[in-house]
Amino acid sequence: MITRLDHIAIAVPDLDAAIRRFCDDMGLTLAGTEDVVSAQTKTAFIPVPGTRLELVHPLDGKGAIQKHLDKRGGGLHHICFETDDIEADMKRLAGLGYRLLSDTPQPGAHGTRIVFIHPKSCGGVLIELAEHPRDGGH
Amino acid sequence: MITRLDHIAIAVPDLDAAIRRFCDDMGLTLAGTEDVVSAQTKTAFIPVPGTRLELVHPLDGKGAIQKHLDKRGGGLHHICFETDDIEADMKRLAGLGYRLLSDTPQPGAHGTRIVFIHPKSCGGVLIELAEHPRDGGH
Repeated sequence: MITRLDHIAIAVPDLDAAIRRFCDDMGLTLAGTEDVVSAQTKTAFIPVPGTRLELVHPLDGKGAIQKHLDKRGGGLHHICFETDDIEADMKRLAGLGYRLLSDTPQPGAHGTRIVFIHPKSCGGVLIELAEHPRDGGH
Repeated sequence: MITRLDHIAIAVPDLDAAIRRFCDDMGLTLAGTEDVVSAQTKTAFIPVPGTRLELVHPLDGKGAIQKHLDKRGGGLHHICFETDDIEADMKRLAGLGYRLLSDTPQPGAHGTRIVFIHPKSCGGVLIELAEHPRDGGH
């Protein structure tokens, strides 16, 4: 079951500039950064009440975020919902005809297990589902 | 000062289908809809903890959302931060070189006063600031 909006991901061509924009200029607070090797991203986490912004930048100029930047430039990239049972939601949504981008959950940031749903299944919105480890991970 | 993420707006070509996707299929709850004549949108509100999704559809096939749908199809459209003093934030951000799409706050949904910041000022992200009326409006 989806329990909340885990994060909003923004593809950024310059991670330091984006951190300055949201933190120095907009007044939000950087919680930290993480290299998410499985997703080929370097990610900065900016919490806001109930959810967080994730600024995602390509690691080593590779991966899906680099392709997005090359094609469309920086901008809103995807939204992620937290689920308390990713396998159950994957099975239910696949049964409803949603196209999942992997057959099994993949490793995400903060020890999560994640799956993406193809934007063609969601009116053009790339949606991620993430299950956090039972011992926390928020 | 920015206090929280007010909403994430999604441009949708079919409002009823999008409501079914997020509510029936994903399990979220529709709080209501509003025709925001000033923005030329019909908007559906779907709360999630701390913020909400706003599904925005053109009113009468006109306005910025219709242009977005014509050009890029449905998808993530903008994010909105709540501010406790929109004039102060407009003045500060304009002073930092951000390009605001209006010189004064405009009327938004739920009695808010809002302004948009040009995506070219924000790495390709369209950002809205909204100040809610003092008597509530959340």
